[in-house]
Amino acid sequence: MSEVYIIGHKSPDTDSICAAIAYANYKRITGENPAAKAARAGEINPETEYVLKNFGIDVPELLKNAEGKKLILVDHNEFQQIVDGAEKAEIIEVLDHHRIEFKLANPIFFHTEPVGSTSTLVAEKYFDKGVKLDKKMAGIMLAAILSDTVVFKSPTSTNRDKKVADKLAKIVGVDPQKFGVEVKKAKASLEGKSAKDIIHSDFKDYTFGGKKVGVGQVEIVDINEAISRKREILKEMERMTTQEGYDMIFMMLTDIIEEGTELLVVGDMDSSVTKKAFNAELKDNSVYIKGMMSRKKQVIPPLEKTIS
Amino acid sequence: MSEVYIIGHKSPDTDSICAAIAYANYKRITGENPAAKAARAGEINPETEYVLKNFGIDVPELLKNAEGKKLILVDHNEFQQIVDGAEKAEIIEVLDHHRIEFKLANPIFFHTEPVGSTSTLVAEKYFDKGVKLDKKMAGIMLAAILSDTVVFKSPTSTNRDKKVADKLAKIVGVDPQKFGVEVKKAKASLEGKSAKDIIHSDFKDYTFGGKKVGVGQVEIVDINEAISRKREILKEMERMTTQEGYDMIFMMLTDIIEEGTELLVVGDMDSSVTKKAFNAELKDNSVYIKGMMSRKKQVIPPLEKTIS
Repeated sequence: MSEVYIIGHKSPDTDSICAAIAYANYKRITGENPAAKAARAGEINPETEYVLKNFGIDVPELLKNAEGKKLILVDHNEFQQIVDGAEKAEIIEVLDHHRIEFKLANPIFFHTEPVGSTSTLVAEKYFDKGVKLDKKMAGIMLAAILSDTVVFKSPTSTNRDKKVADKLAKIVGVDPQKFGVEVKKAKASLEGKSAKDIIHSDFKDYTFGGKKVGVGQVEIVDINEAISRKREILKEMERMTTQEGYDMIFMMLTDIIEEGTELLVVGDMDSSVTKKAFNAELKDNSVYIKGMMSRKKQVIPPLEKTIS
Repeated sequence: MSEVYIIGHKSPDTDSICAAIAYANYKRITGENPAAKAARAGEINPETEYVLKNFGIDVPELLKNAEGKKLILVDHNEFQQIVDGAEKAEIIEVLDHHRIEFKLANPIFFHTEPVGSTSTLVAEKYFDKGVKLDKKMAGIMLAAILSDTVVFKSPTSTNRDKKVADKLAKIVGVDPQKFGVEVKKAKASLEGKSAKDIIHSDFKDYTFGGKKVGVGQVEIVDINEAISRKREILKEMERMTTQEGYDMIFMMLTDIIEEGTELLVVGDMDSSVTKKAFNAELKDNSVYIKGMMSRKKQVIPPLEKTIS
């Protein structure tokens, strides 16, 4: 029997990789497809690396070109996200949770549902058929759900994701919330990054009323880790105002778990601008603002209005 | 709660109508969608009319324009087959068994499988969830499966269709094979049609080696009904040769259940041509040829070769 590659999108994330592994395992165990094999269409990210390592699972084979292969697509269906050579492959199935943009000459098994992660759909298959789920498989699917739903905080997260994650967490023997933080930490950790790296990981320049303003943002999962790096980051921000001509610099350390931002501010009129723009009182050049998540929606508009 | 219309394609067939009715019933019973309502995108055909009447079920409401409505599409997903106004409707789900050509900006529940009928997928939902299935609902889904799979003879028919049909047939208390013939008969009956109607329901002209040759085909489900009309049809065919200038006329009465054709032949050298082309011996201007189903593939090429 020829191999069937179960594969996610290019630039794979944790759901894309873990759903492929768990679905291939499901297909082999149930006999639906004894030749099913997980593959990946690109390099894995640090979060996925952490998850696979944590559960002692090998990184799936890299499929550089899918020409002539049989494919089951997971976590994507749009052709621009598909592994190279897919136009000359035989797509036999799709399992996904994204919007649909798909066309194929023959009918296939095509299943998408608007849930928070593909791994939710894979895990439901195990539960529905009563297929044995060991700690490893349950663990990677749980990690994938927690990753894709940002620990149930994403607007795409549904009750089904929560319910499935709870069942998986029982098998693994972890608390989903705590484990979610661990998983996200792998990607959102400040560890090993210099203050400069942290500031510049996502930094944008603006000009408001003739003033040069910089606004950076970094995702964190541990406010204490952020606070312990505060002095160091502020020092670099101050250096930027004196040496790089910034009038003001705002640095958002956004806690994606608690949904709030530790806002670090240096420069002209830092306190008065922060008070007027965000109705918040700076103390030692920083303030925690609950609910502040989006630079685009919650930071730039009031800053522009206040400074201009 | 606003109504959700469950609707099949334009020019609806039995599966399109019955899957919509049964799925709307399922959605209401399970509470998945208490406002689900079956609709149709066009006039029903005689077969569907027979099926609904047989089980005492009303013809679904005709939805002429779907603008502003919520839709669940069954038995189709390509936009050119969708009810008018669908581009301004909200498509919330698709359940189908055809090839996919679909695009939508937001993720939805989209489920296609390569089985013989949409009603197979709907019935499996009832069985999987243990939802009560009465004789009426089981009956229309059974009829739809038998219709779409041509009583399991279509190349698209699968073991799953057969299995589901057997379960439904037990609820209804019928033999699937016999009931399938009844259903197909409603469409393929010669009753109420004149010999001229029968011949001209699908009749094509050819010129082979300077001879004017006519080849007609009609689907039947009851060879005895066909044989009882034989003399009458031959008489009309003979009239056509003398009055309409045909050198030869072949009329295929194709039994879609038994998979064979009662071939009626009149004109010049009828016996010799039939013998040479089909290796069959005419008796009283007709012969039954087992396995002959396709005019295009099995009749025209040998006729052309023999006569030219």
